[in-house]
Amino acid sequence: MMIPFNTPYFTGKETDYIKDAVVRKRISGNGYYTQKCQTFFEENYNFLKCLLTTSCTDALEMAAILIDIQPGDEVIVPSYTFVSSANAFVLRGAKIVFADSRKDHPGIDEDKLEGLITSKTKAIVPVHYAGVACDMDKIMALADKYNLFVIEDAAQAIDSFYTGKDGVKRALGSIGHLSAFSFHETKNIIAGEGGMLVVNDPQFVKRAEIIWEKGTNRSAFFKGEVDKYGWVDVGSSFLPSEIIAAFLWAQLENLVEIQYKRLEIWRTYSLELTDWALTQGIQLPILPDYATNNAHMFYIRCKSAEQRDQLIQFLKGRNIQAVFHYLSLHKSPYHKELSNGVELVQSDFLSETLVRLPFYLNMDLNKVIAELKQFN
Amino acid sequence: MMIPFNTPYFTGKETDYIKDAVVRKRISGNGYYTQKCQTFFEENYNFLKCLLTTSCTDALEMAAILIDIQPGDEVIVPSYTFVSSANAFVLRGAKIVFADSRKDHPGIDEDKLEGLITSKTKAIVPVHYAGVACDMDKIMALADKYNLFVIEDAAQAIDSFYTGKDGVKRALGSIGHLSAFSFHETKNIIAGEGGMLVVNDPQFVKRAEIIWEKGTNRSAFFKGEVDKYGWVDVGSSFLPSEIIAAFLWAQLENLVEIQYKRLEIWRTYSLELTDWALTQGIQLPILPDYATNNAHMFYIRCKSAEQRDQLIQFLKGRNIQAVFHYLSLHKSPYHKELSNGVELVQSDFLSETLVRLPFYLNMDLNKVIAELKQFN
Repeated sequence: MMIPFNTPYFTGKETDYIKDAVVRKRISGNGYYTQKCQTFFEENYNFLKCLLTTSCTDALEMAAILIDIQPGDEVIVPSYTFVSSANAFVLRGAKIVFADSRKDHPGIDEDKLEGLITSKTKAIVPVHYAGVACDMDKIMALADKYNLFVIEDAAQAIDSFYTGKDGVKRALGSIGHLSAFSFHETKNIIAGEGGMLVVNDPQFVKRAEIIWEKGTNRSAFFKGEVDKYGWVDVGSSFLPSEIIAAFLWAQLENLVEIQYKRLEIWRTYSLELTDWALTQGIQLPILPDYATNNAHMFYIRCKSAEQRDQLIQFLKGRNIQAVFHYLSLHKSPYHKELSNGVELVQSDFLSETLVRLPFYLNMDLNKVIAELKQFN
Repeated sequence: MMIPFNTPYFTGKETDYIKDAVVRKRISGNGYYTQKCQTFFEENYNFLKCLLTTSCTDALEMAAILIDIQPGDEVIVPSYTFVSSANAFVLRGAKIVFADSRKDHPGIDEDKLEGLITSKTKAIVPVHYAGVACDMDKIMALADKYNLFVIEDAAQAIDSFYTGKDGVKRALGSIGHLSAFSFHETKNIIAGEGGMLVVNDPQFVKRAEIIWEKGTNRSAFFKGEVDKYGWVDVGSSFLPSEIIAAFLWAQLENLVEIQYKRLEIWRTYSLELTDWALTQGIQLPILPDYATNNAHMFYIRCKSAEQRDQLIQFLKGRNIQAVFHYLSLHKSPYHKELSNGVELVQSDFLSETLVRLPFYLNMDLNKVIAELKQFN
């Protein structure tokens, strides 16, 4: 029996709520369960306005439309991230300026951002890798100084927090002007495919609802603010089916329990692997003081590409699926030439050395740890 | 008890298949049920390649990317249609040239298209209103003559056919270079929100899969054609969750039965309302020789806006929800000024006079017909 990298967790209530959505005679978007999920997030994480989307990618695309990206605008994005962090802005004509990761963890190197800002820079997209906060004080200060928008790519960052210099603990996704979350099956809270846009800057709330509803003022119509609705802006069908929202609601009801169990897995990995990692020259994840741990994933950093490949093969031979992660986007076939030979050492090193261990509820954690300890 | 305009139909198997998707440990996109649905459509309707999407809007956006719309390109779209038929191309920078509807039915007036074609025209988007075919021979001939792409907006047109001059009966969606379907809860076959891109022109198959998978060659990777996958193109997360595909599969299994029952409703409306409509100066839908009827909706055309509003109010007073449909897009707040004062008489007339009657399985059809006959 293979231990896979991920197995989607099912609370058992998902299909009950889907049936209930059917009974309510409304399974298109923006219905009962969509509202329930959105309100949950707004109330629990101090997000100003939440809109469920069909994916985190789509939430990022909404953000790109909202900040009115024009051809030639520059957007700063880490190279070590999922393709959508960049593509969402490329679709609007942006030029992507790739930033390197920190030396101590895969987040964007906040201290190298200022050197990448030009008169054309419109936004910075910090990605909270593994749900671990970027140093948002530094990033928001740069945004203030240069009049930029900050769009948090919080795909992996649900239920994770950042404590700034002011001592206030803020949920990731509540700090940037806009933020995007994912409910892909590999995330802590899932809906198969799914996402959410968070609007924290009040100037974007009204237009976000319009863009979400295919560029119509349908939301205003349902609130009785206009007597008929029509085409008023660009937009797309960003809102997911109530089937997705109902599924997600079952997960949200179990958020505390899911997070508790995930943290147990994470802590066990960390505790059990510390000595082994030290002897192998492998680095375990670090958590900056200002960040909390949402136990999204457990990654380790090998000392070389060779060791990484050997480790993945070794585990595969023992029926355990461990996987690498991103390839540097600045060296991708799509962007290589546009990148003009820029070198991003940390990103490349992470592409070659990072491994993600199996991570899901009810997994056989002891077996994975025992087998890992055999590797040397 | 209100008789609503629409009630989503549930076969009862949807949640069983969703549970099965969970048991298969795969609820993100492009899994078992996605493949099953896509194969079903390809085999039953002679579509070259099908890709499920999160909405018909998204399928149209994929089409706009595939035909490589550039700022300034012109796309001909009927004014009497859903906003996404236009917005999907606006998002890529296209200028929309709106066409009028036919006098005898709401489809695009094929005979007026040639006058709208310029050197910048890149595509025509015929919308098969109410699932009734546009005259595709005429449209494809124009596309050939002027080297244009035809993108069928087949949102309402599942299981509907067109018989061309060659006597061959072809499924709507199989004729244009690309086509888009909807599985919105108001359609014949539903998934709450959902859609599908159909690729009929072989030149687009490979790139369609890439764009669908966020601009990566992940599909090729899973087929073993490349040894790792990366960022190779623009793209988005167009693929829906397996939860949506599993729901859709339950519907597809019942397609024949659903269509049979919908046709019964349509025929009953038509038969029972013929005399009444005649005395009221109301027109019932007509079906051109070359078109089949997929019983997507039953619309009637009042003789005036006044009569239409009275009829809707009359039915509302009897707890029956009948609804108007599109407002001319060329006169929308978003496009009014761009439309430069162009007048599209049929589209405006339809905006003012068309009413859609309640239409769903197991509805109280006799009551609606009896009440309608009281209106005069």
